[in-house]
Amino acid sequence: MARIPHPLSQLSLDETALARDVIRQAHPGTLLNFRVIFLLEPPKAEVEAYLELEHSGNLTAASQRLARLAQAWYDVIGSSRVPQYHETVVDLRAASIAEKKVIDAKSQASLSVWEFNQLVKCVTENPEVQAKVADLKLPAGFELVIEPWPFGAPDPRDGDDRLFQALMFAQRSGNPDSNFYAYPLPIIPVVNIYNLEVVRIETPATGGGGDSLTERSNYAGIVDHCTDSEYVPELLPGGTRQDLKPLTVVQPYGPSFKIDDGNLIRWQKWQFRVSFNPREGAVLHDLRYDGRSVLYRLSISDMTVPYADPRNPYHRKQAFDFGDGGLGNAVNNLTLGCDCLGYFDGVLVDHEGKPQVTKNVICLHEQDNGINWKHTNWRTGRAVVTRRRELVIQFIITLANYEYIFNFKLDQAAGIMVEARATGIVSVVNIDEGKTAPWGNVVNPGALAQNHQHVFCVRIDPAIDGSRNTVVQEESLPVAMNPYSNPQGNLYEVRQVPIAKSGGYDVEPLNNRVFKIQNTNKLNPVSGKPIAYKVITPATQKLLADPRSTQARRALFAKHHLWVTKHKDDELYAGGRYTLLSKDEIGGVADAAARDDDVLNEDVVLWSCFGLTHNPRVEDWPVMPVEILQVSLTPADFFTANPALDVPSNKDLGSRYVDACCKENKL
Amino acid sequence: MARIPHPLSQLSLDETALARDVIRQAHPGTLLNFRVIFLLEPPKAEVEAYLELEHSGNLTAASQRLARLAQAWYDVIGSSRVPQYHETVVDLRAASIAEKKVIDAKSQASLSVWEFNQLVKCVTENPEVQAKVADLKLPAGFELVIEPWPFGAPDPRDGDDRLFQALMFAQRSGNPDSNFYAYPLPIIPVVNIYNLEVVRIETPATGGGGDSLTERSNYAGIVDHCTDSEYVPELLPGGTRQDLKPLTVVQPYGPSFKIDDGNLIRWQKWQFRVSFNPREGAVLHDLRYDGRSVLYRLSISDMTVPYADPRNPYHRKQAFDFGDGGLGNAVNNLTLGCDCLGYFDGVLVDHEGKPQVTKNVICLHEQDNGINWKHTNWRTGRAVVTRRRELVIQFIITLANYEYIFNFKLDQAAGIMVEARATGIVSVVNIDEGKTAPWGNVVNPGALAQNHQHVFCVRIDPAIDGSRNTVVQEESLPVAMNPYSNPQGNLYEVRQVPIAKSGGYDVEPLNNRVFKIQNTNKLNPVSGKPIAYKVITPATQKLLADPRSTQARRALFAKHHLWVTKHKDDELYAGGRYTLLSKDEIGGVADAAARDDDVLNEDVVLWSCFGLTHNPRVEDWPVMPVEILQVSLTPADFFTANPALDVPSNKDLGSRYVDACCKENKL
Repeated sequence: MARIPHPLSQLSLDETALARDVIRQAHPGTLLNFRVIFLLEPPKAEVEAYLELEHSGNLTAASQRLARLAQAWYDVIGSSRVPQYHETVVDLRAASIAEKKVIDAKSQASLSVWEFNQLVKCVTENPEVQAKVADLKLPAGFELVIEPWPFGAPDPRDGDDRLFQALMFAQRSGNPDSNFYAYPLPIIPVVNIYNLEVVRIETPATGGGGDSLTERSNYAGIVDHCTDSEYVPELLPGGTRQDLKPLTVVQPYGPSFKIDDGNLIRWQKWQFRVSFNPREGAVLHDLRYDGRSVLYRLSISDMTVPYADPRNPYHRKQAFDFGDGGLGNAVNNLTLGCDCLGYFDGVLVDHEGKPQVTKNVICLHEQDNGINWKHTNWRTGRAVVTRRRELVIQFIITLANYEYIFNFKLDQAAGIMVEARATGIVSVVNIDEGKTAPWGNVVNPGALAQNHQHVFCVRIDPAIDGSRNTVVQEESLPVAMNPYSNPQGNLYEVRQVPIAKSGGYDVEPLNNRVFKIQNTNKLNPVSGKPIAYKVITPATQKLLADPRSTQARRALFAKHHLWVTKHKDDELYAGGRYTLLSKDEIGGVADAAARDDDVLNEDVVLWSCFGLTHNPRVEDWPVMPVEILQVSLTPADFFTANPALDVPSNKDLGSRYVDACCKENKL
Repeated sequence: MARIPHPLSQLSLDETALARDVIRQAHPGTLLNFRVIFLLEPPKAEVEAYLELEHSGNLTAASQRLARLAQAWYDVIGSSRVPQYHETVVDLRAASIAEKKVIDAKSQASLSVWEFNQLVKCVTENPEVQAKVADLKLPAGFELVIEPWPFGAPDPRDGDDRLFQALMFAQRSGNPDSNFYAYPLPIIPVVNIYNLEVVRIETPATGGGGDSLTERSNYAGIVDHCTDSEYVPELLPGGTRQDLKPLTVVQPYGPSFKIDDGNLIRWQKWQFRVSFNPREGAVLHDLRYDGRSVLYRLSISDMTVPYADPRNPYHRKQAFDFGDGGLGNAVNNLTLGCDCLGYFDGVLVDHEGKPQVTKNVICLHEQDNGINWKHTNWRTGRAVVTRRRELVIQFIITLANYEYIFNFKLDQAAGIMVEARATGIVSVVNIDEGKTAPWGNVVNPGALAQNHQHVFCVRIDPAIDGSRNTVVQEESLPVAMNPYSNPQGNLYEVRQVPIAKSGGYDVEPLNNRVFKIQNTNKLNPVSGKPIAYKVITPATQKLLADPRSTQARRALFAKHHLWVTKHKDDELYAGGRYTLLSKDEIGGVADAAARDDDVLNEDVVLWSCFGLTHNPRVEDWPVMPVEILQVSLTPADFFTANPALDVPSNKDLGSRYVDACCKENKL
């Protein structure tokens, strides 16, 4: 490691291998099963000092040498039935263990693909499962498909066992991409993954509204009333539509961004670093506009997807797609779907700890998003129009049936947008012929798509011209007509209330409530107001589950739209560090908020939680068109004018420019 | 007129000229001042019968001959000080007057550009105004600019006079596109446009918060503390940024849409007609997907922009950009800014009634909006990804300092989006040096941008597989944990309440409230539920002005997020037919709703009202980056599967396709 890596750059292959080696040496003669190895970012105070030197051009060789730490999460396989789960920090410069923790058996490690493989094997070979499947009398030409799922919200009877559940489907033979989700089977084996035992086999109800919660049809011929529902083009009965003409985007002079120093991106006055890790995916660091600091760190922190079917065992369907460990395993390689102009690879490890480059887990591209600003002087007819160019940093994950597309979008007016698009195949269960149910919608014969929610949490660690920031709640409120201040009744009041204590806060769109992140130490020279960025977090429904339910107790972060906490190193995950099989949210944002910290003019962190109550439409089947959710940050008296004022208008770019809506535009 | 025009096509030049001629003949020897002449659509019942024949291929020459009507709005200049305002309907086939109304003097005609020209001349030549301006002692090298405005919310003292107000600014000489808004002058002459008298000269306050509402500084040297703030590229001190590389969109095989029969557009299973009129701009008619009727008519119905500065005469700043008559005058010619692939011209008349083609008032283009649906089978690695292509129907208006961009967007999954983008220059008034004010923000030295709201209303006339539709309010609501229906606490209830009576309804995003337009006469064969489209109207703040204020009384439509009324011919304008100088909303949506009509399984109309509370940021100056608002309609059990399922994926299009995020994508 001749070159000193930037403290915010992800671990290289060599660094990952070194971490593994150090850990192996610390466990001589012991079998280890690795889950993840990734960068443990240095303490923020150290990084901030580093960044200050870096941006002022005063970095020395000595000041560059922050501790370089790797965190490794792995199982130690001993003689006991239950392996010990370890979280170890390796000091890479010293090639030694810096910190070592054995995690209590009550906290489950995140899952790994090798566990899914074990699960499938175990279920497939289990005679009892085989007998149950035989009872279903699947039609000829169908095969069994096993879909591993996290266990979700556990029941008290399940103790601290490491359980997984296996959803089951039948697939028409012949094409391995035939849509097996159209043939759901009402059998769900539960497996203890440590001893590979089938603990029990759930046989869920298949009734509808009005039936008892345990109503089951005769299982023989259970998929006879189901029908094919394909999405791969070669299986579509009518083929694909023929009248869509190509729409070609070309950047003949290359992209407008530059990538330096491995992960430093410069684009349109923005600069930032990007990294990838198996828990959060793409993370943006040290985001600056025109040399001024805006954010220290921006990430997708967490997500939960609880299902609302009250029948056993469906109350346990509740994924934490980030915390359960799916993200690293689930991330898409973006070459096939969207071959962008810039790529970043990730480093993931296999169960032996062998690091492997996962190609193109993050992609980067520019896009046009219509008009950004326009004014026509009607006296002279002179129109000045600028387009809105955006830089998109994208990653996509697939979790069994479902996919999420996450985009960080930067624009030329210094705005930041975090976008989640939900797509993929909605989760369905078998329902008896001719029945419907209040907790879902029949989207294909025999296939009931259950109502569910998706609640996302975006973690925003701001640095509005420095890390001492204050969050202010601002509302626009009516003022009664009165002869003194409001003689004609048209006045309204803009009321600001600073948030003094850490806690959970909510949106109130009918009051035009917004949250501003101010730096009260710096006033805008034009308006005289503190410089600020405004957070617009979507006004969406919070978690619906009864607060006493396990679903609600393990996702406290979904109780509020915006949490404000005081920064603490390595406090990154809204739903807590251990979500797999969790019974309560522990060490998540609710606990952080409960410290009741003073957050005025402090190093604050904001957690924007928003969601989608998804009562499936028939149109969501078999693959759903994207539902789009966005949280945005825009400057509010941070600058002294529109930051996009100097963007060239079409006319100025002249014939070199062909704009996004135009075949040819030679002005 | 050899060819019989479609009943939903706008008037041609010839038809407009004929209407004018018929009207002139009806007023022999009288001077007429024309305001607008445009199509009066035939009664819906007749058009529906026509469309049924048209779409079933059974139109005969006889059945095509619906009455073809033109409506003309014009002043009859007599000997009286106050011209008579007439609204006349001409039967074009008979070349005769079909209906004639003289409008009561209490209802003002919409404004025309020739009135603005008269206003400027009157104010410029008025000695009192000249004296007031001289008192300001404008610096050398500055010229006076007069900005005509509608009078806004009138005071009781103003009676029924036809008044306009003239905002005033100073402009640095040398470039007629120098931004004069940076130099606001606290003089507002009020003019009676009928006798061209300056009724009074308002001299607004220039103080700040804490000052009295009438506080004025010494007027001499009033703009000495103001500074230049330019937006035209040649005047930008630093020029334009140089690092934006071209992003070229080309459709080498042409667009995917076809235009037939003048205004019939077909694109990706959609078909509809588009027309332009001077009150609403672009209107979509008879919108069908895959041959099935979705909407009868879609339009921007109204809009109001009240300002919140309580000081006289700023309480009167309240534009109705559609109803006041600005739209026809204000519409942008789209050649310069955005040279799209399809255009539609409008026909407008001058004050003599002479019809003129206004080029390119509507433009049409396709765009890519990221991924539309994706699924990866993790077992096989097979990813199917489709992009989201959208068809955009766009028009843009400029109203003095401000612009609005309106987009109707259709997507391939049968979704419809109506988008409003607000841009242009925020309205500013002079403020004394060093002061700030609670009713606005200082965005440039001496320039206070006043807080204001924009409330839009989109009129949706649905035809969900026919015109008998029912609007249903649907919410997702918690259910307390109980041993019978919700033993684990994860169930939630989806509750639907049909709207039985016309009225105003509101959003409740925290209940995930949506409104569905159902056709209860047709059940979806898969889900068994009524076929429907879902309306997602934004959860935004309603009008803030005191309900007793003139601002609030003349914009009752802004009191609710969604109005449901029973269809009535020619009931199109949410704020009423006569908004200019209105003191109350009369004949608007509130009156329509007050009929208390039964609206279950009836010909219903929905009015989606949403807005932007705009407390200006410094970044909104001198031209603001777009603020975007959207209302969407998506199918909800209208189809039997994802309507975009047959959109080809990248892979299938192969090397002929280069997708929107990709330099080159040869799969």
